[in-house]
Amino acid sequence: MSKFFTQRLENLVPYVPGEQPQDKKYVKLNTNESPFPPSSGVKKAVSDEVESLKLYSDPECVALRNEMSRVYNIEPEWIIMNNGSDETLNFAFMAFADEKSPLVFPDITYGFYPVFAEINHIPYEEIPLTSDFSVNTEDYIGVNKTVVIANPNAPTGKCMPLCDIEKIVKSNPQNIVIVDEAYIDFGGETAVPLVKKYNNLFVTGTFSKSRSMAGVRLGFGIANPELIKDINTIKYSTNPYNIDRLTSIAGVTALKEQDYYDKNCKTIIENREWTTKQLESIGFSVIPSKANFVFAKSCEIEGEKLYLSLKEKGVLIRHFTKERIKDYNRITIGTMEQMKILIEKIKEIREEMNL
Amino acid sequence: MSKFFTQRLENLVPYVPGEQPQDKKYVKLNTNESPFPPSSGVKKAVSDEVESLKLYSDPECVALRNEMSRVYNIEPEWIIMNNGSDETLNFAFMAFADEKSPLVFPDITYGFYPVFAEINHIPYEEIPLTSDFSVNTEDYIGVNKTVVIANPNAPTGKCMPLCDIEKIVKSNPQNIVIVDEAYIDFGGETAVPLVKKYNNLFVTGTFSKSRSMAGVRLGFGIANPELIKDINTIKYSTNPYNIDRLTSIAGVTALKEQDYYDKNCKTIIENREWTTKQLESIGFSVIPSKANFVFAKSCEIEGEKLYLSLKEKGVLIRHFTKERIKDYNRITIGTMEQMKILIEKIKEIREEMNL
Repeated sequence: MSKFFTQRLENLVPYVPGEQPQDKKYVKLNTNESPFPPSSGVKKAVSDEVESLKLYSDPECVALRNEMSRVYNIEPEWIIMNNGSDETLNFAFMAFADEKSPLVFPDITYGFYPVFAEINHIPYEEIPLTSDFSVNTEDYIGVNKTVVIANPNAPTGKCMPLCDIEKIVKSNPQNIVIVDEAYIDFGGETAVPLVKKYNNLFVTGTFSKSRSMAGVRLGFGIANPELIKDINTIKYSTNPYNIDRLTSIAGVTALKEQDYYDKNCKTIIENREWTTKQLESIGFSVIPSKANFVFAKSCEIEGEKLYLSLKEKGVLIRHFTKERIKDYNRITIGTMEQMKILIEKIKEIREEMNL
Repeated sequence: MSKFFTQRLENLVPYVPGEQPQDKKYVKLNTNESPFPPSSGVKKAVSDEVESLKLYSDPECVALRNEMSRVYNIEPEWIIMNNGSDETLNFAFMAFADEKSPLVFPDITYGFYPVFAEINHIPYEEIPLTSDFSVNTEDYIGVNKTVVIANPNAPTGKCMPLCDIEKIVKSNPQNIVIVDEAYIDFGGETAVPLVKKYNNLFVTGTFSKSRSMAGVRLGFGIANPELIKDINTIKYSTNPYNIDRLTSIAGVTALKEQDYYDKNCKTIIENREWTTKQLESIGFSVIPSKANFVFAKSCEIEGEKLYLSLKEKGVLIRHFTKERIKDYNRITIGTMEQMKILIEKIKEIREEMNL
């Protein structure tokens, strides 16, 4: 860092996103993107909007929130749109956590949570997942801190039943419970209906996964209108025009074509089950997943070696160096064709290792 | 605010952006947008990118920075791209200011500066502009704080000569000087070449004004690579994918079609000179502007009354309630047709008031 960088943040260690190689065509199974393009209407809608780019976007995102309202069956005042889940989560951390209400989240979860905590100077505690990578609900009952739960969790893919989420929310009425539902559309049950029952529940979601638009940067929060106002206070104090016009119209159009995305989710779920069985048949232990990825460990090949060998063969998966999960890899579920290549390449690696 | 909102930010007063009415066709001269659409290549480029939206954007913005490098004649490592000037400024405040290096900026300038300071808990001092709304260079010489200067300034439109900017930068070697050049392309001289000479200079710019893309959210910072790394530390700790794929390709295409935007700037400058003369001929005092707006005061009509009367007649301009400038209005320079309507409507108002 330069000598001008604030001492306040001198220990900050930024998040490291998954590789986004621009140079080579990989079978890209490393950042949980959808293998399917956006729905058919998006192209024309985006193209028609270009003329209007000279004007600022709508900071209130009225059109988007109206469509969201229809799809999620909740009034627009209960919804906020932001530049991805990341921004929504960062805003929620800023609004609802501090020294008096520190953060608590699992030790194995989305790696950005500790970074958001650090940059905002919020103390945090990491609660270890159980030995089978489950969130132990009891650990969060009446914990009296701002709770963050990714459900399904990443990188494990494990999903908590909604009744357990509700228990945590109910038992912490003085603190916000943030439920990060980036992967909810692949088999989990959303907590959105619970926001009408609990004023301390904040649910986040994204268009990056099930809606095939990681490249468009669109995320949202759903909660009691009082909490939405709080997040708007943060948004209007940092970047009110965070949703651009092209992103907005892409999102509106996607919501109108929701059936297409629902169908794709079914395909991903089928491909996930197929991939799980295939991996298990060649010596992998696979955590049961409700997400668009699986978290898997070979009994015979080290996690890092598998990642590097697959990369050499043109297949990108995600490896984490954290001690507890270093033998695992997170593998995004793509098309059946992509998954067949994955399995084939792993079999090649096994042969090369004489396994 | 809700009972869950952090006490840390309980006094935060968010920025109030100019009105963005979605309901009615106004002659919109209130938020300094360009009256011209993006250049001809943007539509096809954006449309062609939709298929790729399933993939994340490039957090390093390599393609954008390469084009920027060509247009601004500086290596890509000296450039960072962000979600608008607002985000770039917020990141720079976070990185380069704190209790030990508090902020200093004019009392009349971009209204977001104090908000960024507040949300980041950075002390700040506002130095009054001179009576003719000039920045007094001497006030910033050796001030030993993090300096923020909008050049040209908003909402006044006044521009400092580059030699005065240089004096300020040179005299504060232990602190960063941020020069916000959102409006530089309408007649000012950019400080970008000075970043090679001074490691404490951070220049920001935007695609929202001269490049006709307020709706695309694209801003940038240019500085010594060490400072760029500092800003990247903040970016990668909040929202690494802040530039989406559509914004990126729109920006790349615009930079390739720079001539179109240069021509538009010339037109805006001509229209500004025409508008200034017209306003002066009907009793206005107009601050000499180097921006795509003028800051003007009628000797006979109160600032707020003019704003409201014009709004009633379908012309939106920007009024500020701050005591020192409440008799002024900021009027964006649009097409000649728009400016003729503006003058015509003001003449109507004068007639209705029997002036």
